Amino acid sequence: MAERNIKLHISYDGADYHGWQVQPGQQTVQGEITNAVERLTGQTVRVNGSSRTDAGVSALGQVANIRIDTPVPTENLARALTERLPADIAINKAIDVSDDFDAIRSTKSKMYRYTIFTGSQTPVLQIRHCWHRVGKLDIPAMDKAAKLLTGKKDFKSFASAGDSRESSVRTILSCDVSSDEKQVYIDVQANGFLYNMVRNIVGTLVEVGRGKWPAEKITEILEARDRTAAGPIAPASGLCLMWIKY
Amino acid sequence: MAERNIKLHISYDGADYHGWQVQPGQQTVQGEITNAVERLTGQTVRVNGSSRTDAGVSALGQVANIRIDTPVPTENLARALTERLPADIAINKAIDVSDDFDAIRSTKSKMYRYTIFTGSQTPVLQIRHCWHRVGKLDIPAMDKAAKLLTGKKDFKSFASAGDSRESSVRTILSCDVSSDEKQVYIDVQANGFLYNMVRNIVGTLVEVGRGKWPAEKITEILEARDRTAAGPIAPASGLCLMWIKY
Repeated sequence: MAERNIKLHISYDGADYHGWQVQPGQQTVQGEITNAVERLTGQTVRVNGSSRTDAGVSALGQVANIRIDTPVPTENLARALTERLPADIAINKAIDVSDDFDAIRSTKSKMYRYTIFTGSQTPVLQIRHCWHRVGKLDIPAMDKAAKLLTGKKDFKSFASAGDSRESSVRTILSCDVSSDEKQVYIDVQANGFLYNMVRNIVGTLVEVGRGKWPAEKITEILEARDRTAAGPIAPASGLCLMWIKY
Repeated sequence: MAERNIKLHISYDGADYHGWQVQPGQQTVQGEITNAVERLTGQTVRVNGSSRTDAGVSALGQVANIRIDTPVPTENLARALTERLPADIAINKAIDVSDDFDAIRSTKSKMYRYTIFTGSQTPVLQIRHCWHRVGKLDIPAMDKAAKLLTGKKDFKSFASAGDSRESSVRTILSCDVSSDEKQVYIDVQANGFLYNMVRNIVGTLVEVGRGKWPAEKITEILEARDRTAAGPIAPASGLCLMWIKY
């Protein structure tokens, strides 16, 4: 049987996992999916995920591809794998794609949403999926700062140590700060992200939102090309990978 | 110092707890709060909770009272206890009440909400707080059946074995079934509940919603005064204690 290339649309609650990527002795999302594929097909394949989300980060729109020669019909694959996964990981769709599709290399852009809960009472049912930070934030100022991040720029100031990629230039296609009664949402769409880039952006925008820095400080931070110029990193729990475009 | 009687407003994500009530060797909500009070005040008190929610059941409006002679000002108590609790349990309010207030005996009515997620894709971020049951439900039929449950009635058919209370007569003040795009909500307000009563009601209403039984079947089930006459029990994860009236 010819090897097939199958694209998987994946969602997960990352709170109980040590991130996407397989690590010895740790429960990871990639590890769980690898095991589910193995239990279903008897084959051990590489689950090539587009985003290596960190421990505690969730996803509603992760994408991966697997190369496999299973006879399981594609239309049954999502359900069959989901049945073999923990309740907090789901394969929402499986489709056959051309051989040249690669979930990492073929990515055009992706969108992350970061959620901050600003109410004083602990949101116990959402606590795994937000940053509970009590206190008012200046949303217009944060959104103004967010707009200064858009475009093709060097984001070295927003990359945590450990990012081994050669270039720190990325293109942020949109960065929007919005809010409802008790929550603030920061939506960042880019052609790619550096290590911890969204969480470092959020931590910086919060410094603007709480009045420590003016929105214009962003330009200075970008020019510094130095992580210590930006704000502190925001907690992982507030971050969710929303979708990936190909 | 005179002993004070303090009313606590409590919320928790019950997914990781073996219910409200202290049990040897198990993590329970009552146990965590008892420990927090002890760490804060040095005193071991009985945390008298209104509802003994089961394992996996959450609460946004649990109420308890503690009798204690701590000098900690009431206005600081909620925050100080919450700081000493896991992130999925919070004390939202603490107020001094008269000596005759008892969180169990003084209860006038309480409301539970049950949430069913009917969409085909697993709601990974809500999976701990709903029953994921794929398939359309007839909401008007369920609501019609729900209305047949209201009033002062003998709910023996909806009480799981293990309910030791003498009378199985309770008054359901309202029972409403509503829905949005992908979720069905069953809200039940009563002056008191038998063991597993809401979950047994929900399991029965779902039998109506999926067309197995007509709404009128409810009258027959009530008259049987027999648990086996009603539908199966719904999972604990969908249940949440919303509020208690005094």
